[in-house]
Amino acid sequence: MLTRNQAINEIADETVDSCQDKTLAVCRSVSSSRLNGWISELATIGGRDDGGVARETLTQEDWQARRWLIDLAKNLGCRVYQDECANLYFERAGHKKLPAVLTGSHLDTQPIGGKYDGAYGVLAGLEIIAALNDADIVTEKPVTVVAWTNEEGSRFGPGAMGSSFFSNPSAIEQHKLSVDRQGVSFASALHETLIEFSDIELITSTPEIAHYIELHIEQGPVLENANTSLGIVTSIQAVRWYRIHCTGAMAHAGTTPMNQRQDAMQMAINLAASFYHIALPFIEQGLKLTIGSWNTLPNAINTIAGNVNFSCDIRAQDDSLVETFSQLLNKLCVTKANVRVESVFARSSTHFPTKMTTIIEQACQQTEQELGINTAIKLPSGAFHDAMYVADRAETGMIFVPSHRGISHNANEYTPPEDVYRGAWALAHALTTLAIQ
Amino acid sequence: MLTRNQAINEIADETVDSCQDKTLAVCRSVSSSRLNGWISELATIGGRDDGGVARETLTQEDWQARRWLIDLAKNLGCRVYQDECANLYFERAGHKKLPAVLTGSHLDTQPIGGKYDGAYGVLAGLEIIAALNDADIVTEKPVTVVAWTNEEGSRFGPGAMGSSFFSNPSAIEQHKLSVDRQGVSFASALHETLIEFSDIELITSTPEIAHYIELHIEQGPVLENANTSLGIVTSIQAVRWYRIHCTGAMAHAGTTPMNQRQDAMQMAINLAASFYHIALPFIEQGLKLTIGSWNTLPNAINTIAGNVNFSCDIRAQDDSLVETFSQLLNKLCVTKANVRVESVFARSSTHFPTKMTTIIEQACQQTEQELGINTAIKLPSGAFHDAMYVADRAETGMIFVPSHRGISHNANEYTPPEDVYRGAWALAHALTTLAIQ
Repeated sequence: MLTRNQAINEIADETVDSCQDKTLAVCRSVSSSRLNGWISELATIGGRDDGGVARETLTQEDWQARRWLIDLAKNLGCRVYQDECANLYFERAGHKKLPAVLTGSHLDTQPIGGKYDGAYGVLAGLEIIAALNDADIVTEKPVTVVAWTNEEGSRFGPGAMGSSFFSNPSAIEQHKLSVDRQGVSFASALHETLIEFSDIELITSTPEIAHYIELHIEQGPVLENANTSLGIVTSIQAVRWYRIHCTGAMAHAGTTPMNQRQDAMQMAINLAASFYHIALPFIEQGLKLTIGSWNTLPNAINTIAGNVNFSCDIRAQDDSLVETFSQLLNKLCVTKANVRVESVFARSSTHFPTKMTTIIEQACQQTEQELGINTAIKLPSGAFHDAMYVADRAETGMIFVPSHRGISHNANEYTPPEDVYRGAWALAHALTTLAIQ
Repeated sequence: MLTRNQAINEIADETVDSCQDKTLAVCRSVSSSRLNGWISELATIGGRDDGGVARETLTQEDWQARRWLIDLAKNLGCRVYQDECANLYFERAGHKKLPAVLTGSHLDTQPIGGKYDGAYGVLAGLEIIAALNDADIVTEKPVTVVAWTNEEGSRFGPGAMGSSFFSNPSAIEQHKLSVDRQGVSFASALHETLIEFSDIELITSTPEIAHYIELHIEQGPVLENANTSLGIVTSIQAVRWYRIHCTGAMAHAGTTPMNQRQDAMQMAINLAASFYHIALPFIEQGLKLTIGSWNTLPNAINTIAGNVNFSCDIRAQDDSLVETFSQLLNKLCVTKANVRVESVFARSSTHFPTKMTTIIEQACQQTEQELGINTAIKLPSGAFHDAMYVADRAETGMIFVPSHRGISHNANEYTPPEDVYRGAWALAHALTTLAIQ
């Protein structure tokens, strides 16, 4: 004879056992060939001869990718809907109408990007839905996959617009003002996109979620160097973006003596060189300074430039390091006439909650055990991700898989198919664990 | 009773007097309002809100300008024809089928140029034809006005393609390979232009000419500072154009430590800064170094640049100074891995023959006397001009009028209407003197 408490405990244990069985059943239904096949197929949309992908946000290529993904998700039985920032959601209903367990990433790439950055996280999410279908398991909470709009920020700065809208809808007003290299505003590109996809249900408020887990390639060399296939992301480093505007006077290159010029190019080159110089003492502490974008007006061989602007991307794990260097940079510019510093984007470091890193760590342990692979490691993220913003709204975590030689934002970005599979296996475990009860 | 020699001398004197009278009649028929009106009208084609003109070579705007000019020249009774480089000729026949006296300049502008650079020389040429018509004088030699194709070199490098073809037709093969920012070749743009203007007579060899005089704005401050309206150009300075190509590896700005990067932007910025540095000792001797064009791939805030290239425009009156600095620059690049120097254009200094500077000086003296203005000065040209190439084929000279504050290749380029008129007056004198006998 059992006491009431003993009975309750036994039922609870059985429930746990049953949940663990179901979770493993989902993980074991993850298909490496299906997922790797989808990655190859999606990479043909915007695919380049050099193996890279050119699929900037809200372009024709992005639209084509969205359409392809919508068809795929519908075939998996998902409810498909979008929000006012054109974030696309693919929902697999649960037993109860609870806030969903969300996963996903983004479809857009840099002007010349790779096959994995973003695309992997979205397709792995759909792979989990396919695995849930194959295992014939209905979770308690819905499982939803999201493709965030404009994570890259290369066409419209700053990046992660979709996820920042998700955590703070009023942010969209500022985003709408952003203009691309051809003078098209984000407002206009977004409007065109919502018209193009007017057949897709549009929700006026973003969905309620319980948790978010993003699976992504590392885009750095740490996991490969540690000879492991899985990384538990603890944090995302701090980042600031500036644009430095130098104003001179356009004049004829042949007739204006050097000492009578207001040469915006010379101003910008000397300033940029001094930025690299003042960054030197901070490099060992982990500061990263990137001048990636440079625009010149009129950009002609024989005309002294009237206007030059260039970007500065400043990052470090340590918020105070970013703050110190940014102050030095601004101080240097303040002393220069005809130089203006525009602050484009700033974000402190993000730290994921222990509850989420623990669930992901357990998922990785299960993956290691089942697939016989090396132990996952904990690491911070050098790149920023949509998870950075979603963390403001729900408990969030991230899983990394290796990037070969740390190469990303490059046609040669590569993650071996077996690591693609291992990451999805771990994601299946963590998501199902969160969704099943 | 006159001796035979006395009689011959008297007839010769009468001929000279008659020629001088006719020449003055032409000069006095030059109309300031007509010429300044044409300049304003032409400036509306490609006209910008800031007062500048955007009419790069072989664009729709250039075509529109060509069409407008053709109509104008036809109304003046000119024979209109073009050569295989789309140089446009407007010929006023003389008594005899002799090689023509040629004048003119170019219609194309920098991406953002002014109203006077090039346009002035072409329109002043047509103004002389109108003045010859009004004075009802037929010269012995034909007077021909030319509009050279692609003087600026901003869309297709190098510049002065039309005039270099005129003096060396085989040069066109190299020109045809030049490609603009949108990937359009000069060959293709030229082909489209000749189709667009298939109603205009196409000649298979360039016309024979006796002399060439180009009237142009100074594009520098010398004449204005000297408080004179006319300049007799003695020479054109030496020029070299290079493009410096830096190759790195595209990578993610957030994940790649500074000391593990191959950053093409950092490479290019430090190299460009060192060019300015090594130029310092030569500035006083008159060296001009301009880095006017800068191209970055992929030009995204958060991607380390894979490729950067930038231009160097090097000029001086002294050929050996250009040579010395070019050698230093090349030496600096040779020591750098992943840096390649492309030689785009090189031209030694040009010296105009004394015969032509004397005729122009006399024309200026007559202008000064007639219009009561300050004495013209002799000066070298800082900018290069089509006259540089035409000088290889025929006796050539140039007349300058002031540019306000030396500003050119800029929307604020300005020459007062009275100086526009004075320059045309002097040109009328020099051209008629050469053509009338």
